[in-house]
Amino acid sequence: MQIFTNVEFGERHQERLMADAAPDEIHFGDPEQLSAADSAALLRSEVAFGSCPPELLESASELRWLQLDSVGCDQYRGLDWDQLSKRLTVTNLRGFFAVPVAETGIASALALMRAVDQLIELRQLRTWRSVELRPQLRTLAGSHALVAGYGAIGQALKARLAAFGCLVQTFGSLSSAPDLSTLAELDGALPRADILFLALPETDRTTMMFGAERLSRLKPGAILVNLGRGGLVDEDALLRLLADGRLAGAALDVTRDEPLPPESPLWAAPNVILTQHTAGGSAGELDGKADFFLANLVRYRSGLPLSAVVDWAKGY
Amino acid sequence: MQIFTNVEFGERHQERLMADAAPDEIHFGDPEQLSAADSAALLRSEVAFGSCPPELLESASELRWLQLDSVGCDQYRGLDWDQLSKRLTVTNLRGFFAVPVAETGIASALALMRAVDQLIELRQLRTWRSVELRPQLRTLAGSHALVAGYGAIGQALKARLAAFGCLVQTFGSLSSAPDLSTLAELDGALPRADILFLALPETDRTTMMFGAERLSRLKPGAILVNLGRGGLVDEDALLRLLADGRLAGAALDVTRDEPLPPESPLWAAPNVILTQHTAGGSAGELDGKADFFLANLVRYRSGLPLSAVVDWAKGY
Repeated sequence: MQIFTNVEFGERHQERLMADAAPDEIHFGDPEQLSAADSAALLRSEVAFGSCPPELLESASELRWLQLDSVGCDQYRGLDWDQLSKRLTVTNLRGFFAVPVAETGIASALALMRAVDQLIELRQLRTWRSVELRPQLRTLAGSHALVAGYGAIGQALKARLAAFGCLVQTFGSLSSAPDLSTLAELDGALPRADILFLALPETDRTTMMFGAERLSRLKPGAILVNLGRGGLVDEDALLRLLADGRLAGAALDVTRDEPLPPESPLWAAPNVILTQHTAGGSAGELDGKADFFLANLVRYRSGLPLSAVVDWAKGY
Repeated sequence: MQIFTNVEFGERHQERLMADAAPDEIHFGDPEQLSAADSAALLRSEVAFGSCPPELLESASELRWLQLDSVGCDQYRGLDWDQLSKRLTVTNLRGFFAVPVAETGIASALALMRAVDQLIELRQLRTWRSVELRPQLRTLAGSHALVAGYGAIGQALKARLAAFGCLVQTFGSLSSAPDLSTLAELDGALPRADILFLALPETDRTTMMFGAERLSRLKPGAILVNLGRGGLVDEDALLRLLADGRLAGAALDVTRDEPLPPESPLWAAPNVILTQHTAGGSAGELDGKADFFLANLVRYRSGLPLSAVVDWAKGY
């Protein structure tokens, strides 16, 4: 059996994967851009691990299982899954990033509320502004947080926010037993929210879900923290609400364009923290991804159901 | 009865205090620097609220109760409390700042662990460094935190850190029932600590408690978060350990000199977040301070025991 990966593994991880996958062979493709040889290897592989170009996926007729190295799978939404699903199972890393993503989400919300962003900039100016800053500071304690998306990330957020004395409401699909499950309920809760966390997948139903009208329902002075996908939010509307001071700040781990181009107005928008899609990162990330894949590989070889199978009817 | 305050109240709070303290008169002194008239008013007052210059306190023979607007009272340590205590009771704001201080403490620890400090600086450069940053990121989950000082701030820290999946050990005086209560136990725990939070008062026993030898016991790559007093730490030793990379970073709400002078090397030390003694701040701070004082004033007038009396034998 031929296995393909384009995850950014270094030598140490490559050796481990080769040893654990033997006797099957693994082709290690370029994580940045597939070479012609990489594409050829992918086209004859039965198993792939990484983020394969969508345009190659329909031609990869040997492929039976694609293990994504992300949770999001929105880049494959345009393919004909009614057909493709007959021969190809896709699994993602559902749950894998929840703890680090929740930590970056709370880190950046707290940075805005406790003015850590301003204090870091004051350091370069060697300027002491204690007296002016103190009355601006807000606390998670007593704040209303609305967590939209109640999967693994939303659950990790809720547990941590509750320990801060935050009043947390969750919004998500009924199967996750959230506090709110309809758009009408969500819209009803927005005017009370001091912080809105987005931890939704991007699907046909969630793209641009947070446009000008919905974002304007937030309490004046609220903060937006987007940990889901850039496409959930109308960035032009967000920029206007930040410029107006209608929203007090935004922490964006994800943006419509990534990497964010130097000319994007988001770089200079007031009170924005850009965490550059690092929220899922951690020192043990590559070890953990290798573990996840190898555990699923054992299941694949034994004919057992794979973990974290993407449901294309739901889109995540 | 004459009441004196030099807390930085604006007009709204002054009106409220005057109404609630009537028929007693309140003199509002300059919070920055007492004028001659302010000092004269303090010298004839029975009750004072704020931070009175220590050199005036021994002359203020009419003063029976001083309500500090801080928790720390280290600036009065040098006075002769065996004598002064016979006529003067000092109360502080014990517990009042615990929640905001814990939030800034966790905000700045998380900022260092999740590279939010670096990401904020990258924003000015409009530079995307996601791939390089991700493997450097650390999580509170699974980290060992040592909380030195187990009063209200230490307790607030512990509850929040535990929700992140942090393994927390506490150090403090026996009466607070900490995990560790002797210096030998503290020194034994330091080599396992990924993060050391300081939330101790400054007393004769804690000044310079964290010198070169003790800080060197921390696990290589550990982070120091000082929320107590600048005098707890040997700043020269700290600067060397940061420059060596022996410590991965420090978040300092307090420093030996405040405001920190522009020439201080702390401004430019690697991986340092200076929160400029803002940690106790919040939008409701002045309302809360007025509430605290007025509640204690009711007790004072009724001859009831005051809240948050400083014990000069302990020094806090």
